Parts: sequence; C-alpha cells; structure tokens
Amino acid sequence: MRIVINRNADTPIYLQIKNRLREMIFSDVLPAGTILPPERSLAKSLEVNRSTVIKAYQELKADGLVDSHVGKGTIVLSQAKQAALPDGYINPLPWYQLFTETIAGSNDNIIGDIMAITGGDDLISFAGGIPAPSLYPVEIMREIQADLYRKTSREMFLHSPVEGHYPLRESISYLLRQRQIAASAKDTVILSGSQQGLDFAARIFIRPGDTVLVEEPTFFGAIQIFRSAGARVIGVPIDQDGLRTDVLEALLVRHRPKFIYTLPTFQNPSGVTLSLERRYQLLNLAYQYQLPVLEDDPYGELYYDSAPVPPLKALDRHGYVIYLSTFSKSLFLGLRVGWITAPPQVLAKFAHLKQMTDLHVNTPAQFLLDAFIRRGDYDNHIALLRQEYAGRRDRMLEALGKYKVPGTSWNKPLGGYYVWCRLPDNIVRHKLVANAGKRRVVFLPGEAFYPDGTQGDTHVRLNYTFVNPDQIEPGIKHFMQAVRETATDRDLENEHNIKPLV
Amino acid sequence: MRIVINRNADTPIYLQIKNRLREMIFSDVLPAGTILPPERSLAKSLEVNRSTVIKAYQELKADGLVDSHVGKGTIVLSQAKQAALPDGYINPLPWYQLFTETIAGSNDNIIGDIMAITGGDDLISFAGGIPAPSLYPVEIMREIQADLYRKTSREMFLHSPVEGHYPLRESISYLLRQRQIAASAKDTVILSGSQQGLDFAARIFIRPGDTVLVEEPTFFGAIQIFRSAGARVIGVPIDQDGLRTDVLEALLVRHRPKFIYTLPTFQNPSGVTLSLERRYQLLNLAYQYQLPVLEDDPYGELYYDSAPVPPLKALDRHGYVIYLSTFSKSLFLGLRVGWITAPPQVLAKFAHLKQMTDLHVNTPAQFLLDAFIRRGDYDNHIALLRQEYAGRRDRMLEALGKYKVPGTSWNKPLGGYYVWCRLPDNIVRHKLVANAGKRRVVFLPGEAFYPDGTQGDTHVRLNYTFVNPDQIEPGIKHFMQAVRETATDRDLENEHNIKPLV
Repeated sequence: MRIVINRNADTPIYLQIKNRLREMIFSDVLPAGTILPPERSLAKSLEVNRSTVIKAYQELKADGLVDSHVGKGTIVLSQAKQAALPDGYINPLPWYQLFTETIAGSNDNIIGDIMAITGGDDLISFAGGIPAPSLYPVEIMREIQADLYRKTSREMFLHSPVEGHYPLRESISYLLRQRQIAASAKDTVILSGSQQGLDFAARIFIRPGDTVLVEEPTFFGAIQIFRSAGARVIGVPIDQDGLRTDVLEALLVRHRPKFIYTLPTFQNPSGVTLSLERRYQLLNLAYQYQLPVLEDDPYGELYYDSAPVPPLKALDRHGYVIYLSTFSKSLFLGLRVGWITAPPQVLAKFAHLKQMTDLHVNTPAQFLLDAFIRRGDYDNHIALLRQEYAGRRDRMLEALGKYKVPGTSWNKPLGGYYVWCRLPDNIVRHKLVANAGKRRVVFLPGEAFYPDGTQGDTHVRLNYTFVNPDQIEPGIKHFMQAVRETATDRDLENEHNIKPLV
Repeated sequence: MRIVINRNADTPIYLQIKNRLREMIFSDVLPAGTILPPERSLAKSLEVNRSTVIKAYQELKADGLVDSHVGKGTIVLSQAKQAALPDGYINPLPWYQLFTETIAGSNDNIIGDIMAITGGDDLISFAGGIPAPSLYPVEIMREIQADLYRKTSREMFLHSPVEGHYPLRESISYLLRQRQIAASAKDTVILSGSQQGLDFAARIFIRPGDTVLVEEPTFFGAIQIFRSAGARVIGVPIDQDGLRTDVLEALLVRHRPKFIYTLPTFQNPSGVTLSLERRYQLLNLAYQYQLPVLEDDPYGELYYDSAPVPPLKALDRHGYVIYLSTFSKSLFLGLRVGWITAPPQVLAKFAHLKQMTDLHVNTPAQFLLDAFIRRGDYDNHIALLRQEYAGRRDRMLEALGKYKVPGTSWNKPLGGYYVWCRLPDNIVRHKLVANAGKRRVVFLPGEAFYPDGTQGDTHVRLNYTFVNPDQIEPGIKHFMQAVRETATDRDLENEHNIKPLV
C-alpha cells in the first residue's frame, strides 16, 4: 500500500491518508472485503501518530466505505466502489433564495427574547407573562402522576385522538360552564397552547392581502402570526371600557376584515375589560357585517374583585364567536395545552390542521390536566391564584404610587397579569431599557403591542405575577428611577419651562 | 309585573318569560338595581314549574343582564339597559366562504382515521405505525418521573427555550453520533414530532405552484402537508435499492423542485433502504442542481440484521441535508417529540416558526426523554425493540408464506415497521377492505401513499409492530382469505383460463 504524505500541504495528514485510501477503494485497488492494515502498523510505516490513522479510518467509516469490528479489523465494504463524492468545489446552498418571502423576511423572535430574559438570579423581571413558579401545585401533580402510573400506565403514552383526550374535553366543558359558556366536550379541540389556535385561525382564514382587526394595543404574538400569514393588521383603539365599538363600524365598512381578534377580558397588555354593553355592540356589529369574532380568553378566570362580565362566547347565540383559552396562565406555561371552542364547521378545520401539522397534544399532559380538574384541584388552585395575584397587583400599584415620576400614569387592572404604564412624553425607549437594565430591572416596551409600531414609546407593560412579591417594590422603585433618569435633561425640565411661542 | 304566557306557542315557556323580562330591562321598566321576584313566587303567579323560572333567570344571568347572590335574590345589573341583542333574524355565518381555498377544499383526515381503527378488542390491526404498547418502558418512566419530582420539581413545568431543553439537545447529539452524524446540541431544534418538521419545511420553502419531489410510494402525511402548502408533489419511483437516482436527474431538469423529501432507511411504506451508492448519487445530484434534501429518519435505529448504511446527513459534507427524526417510533407516539438537525440558516427559520406557532415542546416530556437517554435506558430499549420486532417481522413473513395467495408478493424488510405487500392484479380495493373487515382485520390500502393516487389498488401496507405477536398469524391468514375471496370470481379464475386473443 503506497501512501505518500506531504507534510507541507494545507490538507491535514489524516485527510491525506483518508483521501488516498478512498481513491484506492474507488479504483478497486482495494476491492470489497479487503482488510486494511491495523492502525498501529500503518501509523508506524507512515511515521505518523496512531491517532492520525484512527481518524482517517473513522472518516472512511463515516462515509460508509469501510466497516470495523473488534477483532476483525477494518474491512472495505462491497457497495463502496461505486460510491463517489465529487472532487471539485461544491457551491454552498443559497438558502436565503430558497425561503418563501414571508419567511425570508421575518427574523423577530420577540417571545423567545422575552422568555430568555426572565432568568438571572439578580434580575427583577416584569417582562414575561408567566405564572408564579412558587405557586405551582407541584406536590399535587406528583400525587396525580403517581396515581396515573398505577391506574393507566400505558394509555398515558399512547396517541390520543386528534381532537384531544376525550375526558379532558369533558373537563374543559365543565370549566366552560363556570364561564357561562354552554359547550359539550365535542365542541372543543385541544391545542398546543392557545397560540396554536392563533396560528390555525391565520391558516384557515387569511389569504395574503386580507385584513384582520385587532385591539390597539394587543398581544404581539397575534400581530406577528397574522402578519406572517400575509394579513394587513389594522388596530381598533381601546379606552377604559375596552375596544371602541363606536370606531369599529367605520373600519368594518372600509376594510371588510376577515375577522376581528379580541382579548375582551383583562386585556393583554392594557388590563382593561370590554364592558357588557360594548360586548353586545360588538356582537351586533359582527352579526350585521357577518364578521367572525376570535375571542382569546387566557385571563378571564383570574379576577381579583368580582367576576367579570361573561365572555363573548357566552353572549353569542348565533355561532359567530371562536373561543380560545389555555392552561398556560392558570397553571404552567410549560405544558403547552390550550383549546378552541367553536361552531362545528370551524372545529372540523382546526382538527384537520391539528392532524396534519402535529397529530395531537402530548398525551401525558392531557391525562394530568384532566385528573387535576376532576379532583377539584383546578378550582382550588384558581381560588389561590386570585388571592395571591390580587396581593401582588396591590403591591405593584402601591409601589407605583409611592415612587411615581411626573408624567407617568397607569390603570388598576381588575384581573389578569399586567399594569399598562404610561410614560412621560418623548421618552426614548432604548435609553429607558438601558437605564432600567443597569438597575437589573426588565419590562416590555409598548412598541411590540402596536400593529403600526408608531406608539411604542408611550407605554410599558409591567407584569406582577412572575416576580417574587418582595421584589415588586424595589423593582418598581428602580424602574421609576430609570424613568426619571431617562426623562430628566429633557422633558421633566421642559415641563416647568414651557414658554408660549407667541 | 305583567307576563303573559302563550302555552300554544313554539317558544318554550322559560324563553317567553326570559324574553319578556329582557324587554322590561331594556325599556327601563325594570331599572338597574331592581330585585326580581323570588323564583318560587313568580312561578306560583304564572302557574308554571319553579324550574321553568329558574331556567329563565339563568338565561338572563348568562346574558349578563342580571346577577344573583344567595340571600339577596336576582338583581338587574346597571350595564344591562344599554345592552341589546337584535330581535330580527340573524344570518348564520357562511363559514365555508370565509375559509382559504386550500383549507376549504381539504377534508381528509387519513391519519386520524387510521389511529381511530387501531382500537377495538377483537380487531387485528396491521394499519397503524405505532410501537408495541406491551414493550413501553413504563416502569422506568415511573422511576424517572418520581426522581424528577424530587430533583427538579418546578423547572419541569416552566417554559423551555424555543429551540428546546438544552440537556435534551445534548442527549440527541449523542444519539446522532451513534448514527454517524456529527452534530452538536446547537445544531438541533426540538419539535412536536417530526411531522411538525414536515409542516415547517413546507412553510419555509413552498410557494403555491412550487414542485416537491418525493419517493413513490411515500408517507401520506408528507404528501398531504406539501400539497396543502400549494406544492405540486411529483413522485420518483423506487426499486429494491430505494429511490431510482437514474430517473431523478431528468425530473430535476424538468421540474426544478424546491426540495426532495426522502425516507432513505426502511422506507415507509415500502420498507426498502437506499443503497450506499445511490446515497452518493443522490447527494451528487443535489450538489449539482442545488437541491435541498429533506431526510426523514424515524426508523433507522430499528434494524434487525446489521446496521444500515449511514444517513444522508452523515454522508453530506456540504450542508445540503435537513435531517428529521423522532421518538414516536422508538418510544411512544403520545409524547409528540421529534427534532430537526440542519444548517444554521435553516435551523433559525425552524426556531422562528416554532416560537410563532406554539412556542416550544411540552417541557415535562423533554425532561423525561433526556433522563431516559442519559441513564442509558434508551440504548437498552432500542436493543430490546430490535430483538422483539425482528421476531414479529419473521412471524409475519412466515405467515405470509404459509397462507400466500397466487399473485401476492412482498419484500423482506431489514428494519423498520412495514411489509409492503403486492396484491393480485385488478383487485378492487374497497371490496378487499370490506372482506378483511368482516374478518376483523385492518391494514392500509396503498392508495394514500401515491402522490397521483392511481396505483392504489396494487399494494397494501402491513404493520407488524403494534399487534399482539400471537395475532400475527391468524391476522395474516384472515387477510389472505380476504384477498382470495376478493380476487376469486375474477382474476384467479382468469389466471388459468387466459386464451390468446389471436
């Protein structure tokens, strides 16, 4: 076996050995069945390290040209001689050119970015939308899990129907009745979080160029997914009673939207709730203009004073409302289980997409949630959350009042996760983020919540559920200090020095 | 309070009461704060059952018009008077008109249908692609789960990064090395089954009108999802060595496909494996025509004789191969965990879609799988499956030989899940399905696996992993009886009576 090594070449020695052996295999100098020399002796004859020969043989093996067995050595395989990789330069694939326009152009990963910044031990995070980990009913889940292993074992790991584990659909029907929605188990399809419901709605209804209405501000994930389906996303303004139905009709006439997406109860990010009269006005407009209503209700159960007005789905008697909800805000984000309740024609399309895209939701999670609800643990847990989160909300409101900087204002949310805080005029967002970051406080700038992105510097969203309650006051103090620092120099001083121009 | 009841009307009495009360609320006859008469006394005065009044009050409450408190009675709410539902006829929504064309037209739910027929106690099912439930490592999972509750508790229920739980990505990198694929944890994104990878690939690459190449026959779920993205799906024929690379070049020139989708190892449904020389030929053509290769490898580890040739991903040194795999065939379908390993540009788009569509994969399942792999249980389990499934395959092949009907033939799969059985000519599929069904045997007709659907009656797919091994022989016996019964009258008789036409 003649192998010449060029010790001055750029090609590493192991690759020179490998390439020469490959040539000999392809040219039948080393036919199938040939046993290559033991690594140690080839290394000796070539005056290289044994590890260099080992690496060359490994490469040949990875290429499928040889095989090795302990005790038998390294053998040339029979199919090898016809296999050949080109020797010339191979162009790398121009991936970007191959992507569709929407995919090539979209790079934002805002939710991922937010979740990434909720960690860090010394960080005080008002950024996420995550339930309080200290309240997770881990011990109960452990009990249920042990019980499931005893009682159901294999079933828990089998596939579930596309529409979801039927007992869980029954349990959800119980939860819906508590929200005044009359829906049987068959009216619901289990999804991988309500976010998957937004994606499916986009795929079912949106053709590129279609218009979709949303509240302004609204959940950024919805803007992102509707836009990525090619929709024009138009905002409807809100006030303290929620979506402004008086503005809505003109928008319906002008844009003929495919549907309206709304978070009527404890809205994200504003915290406001659509009043009962506006709920009826919205439904009446929907009936009049044949407009599907996509209602997202992740927060409705988490009220801190009295129960909110019923969901749109409960008030709608004509099948215009598609209702989404989730266990992500009431239990754990990590389970990824939500659901849709909708008229049968729409439900069939959701089930079809579920089957086609990822078959069904993780079965063990469905068993776990079903047992948790049936045992009454869910009701108890919600009662606990109402009490705990009310306390956290109050602490945040109190701290905001205590450290208030001129020009800031905020609402008092009656439920849900967020305080929507108005900033002094003309604050520069990235400076505020940086100044707060220096004090180890993070939050969500308002920009992401506006479809047109122009009102980004007016508000920030502050979450009070995730952070340790004792950190709320120091966190808000630092936040307000950052606001003051960012606003000083400019606006706060100007505020007292404004002179009339004429 | 004057309520007139018409006992001859079609409207139920409780609704008459409710409607009349609603009118009085809207017209301020019953202003906000009014306490409605107790149910019992109203029932008495109207001469109806008390339950009828209760139902009417419940309806008013569901509409948000009244509220009731124990001890205080039923009170008209303040917002109620401005809320009004229209009295006239409301058109039902024309949902069908609102769906996009692809969604409106697609109704098949083939995977759901298959999964639905794998149940039934007396049914012998060769239809699914499901691992043997009796081999599920339930006891080990119970141990791991108990351990996770002790050690990690809350983390297990938190969100995971969009790309997946990092330790699981490391464990997958270990599995990939065993398949001769050198990929670090960062080269992989965890998905909800490899099926989600097919969906994402379709969303990333396919514009309506684009062409995609697939093996013919191939996994029906892939045909379905590519087509639903608007692709023209073109089949490349296969023989005993897999995809016919000699036919491929002409198709590449003619159709300029966006990518080729291939199951090179123990293919679904045919069971064949692409030979090493053809793997190199396929890669060379890909390099020459700048063609991305989407390799789906759910079955590669499940070999029953010697290890198969390396995956395309292992042979590709130029980043042309996107590799998908899953835990659905090696462990449980119900966990819905798979992954993609791909060049960084492609991986970034997969992560973006994951974030946008459903955030991340169920966290507890990721913790569970990671521990299972790290403890060495995965390797042991695969070794067990190889042995057990080899036995089941052999039993099926033996039974097929024993009960063979003239005109049938089949391959011997060297791994994976399926025997692809050729039927006598001109058999009528729905008659065969019916005749087998009478004998309580189900299987998958070949039709679904062909992009053009024309070769449906030539083959059936028989799965040997799911069914109880003792049922394999009786099941095949009944299957062959059904084939004989369906073929008789016509083809089998003709076979012996063919006369030359001239």
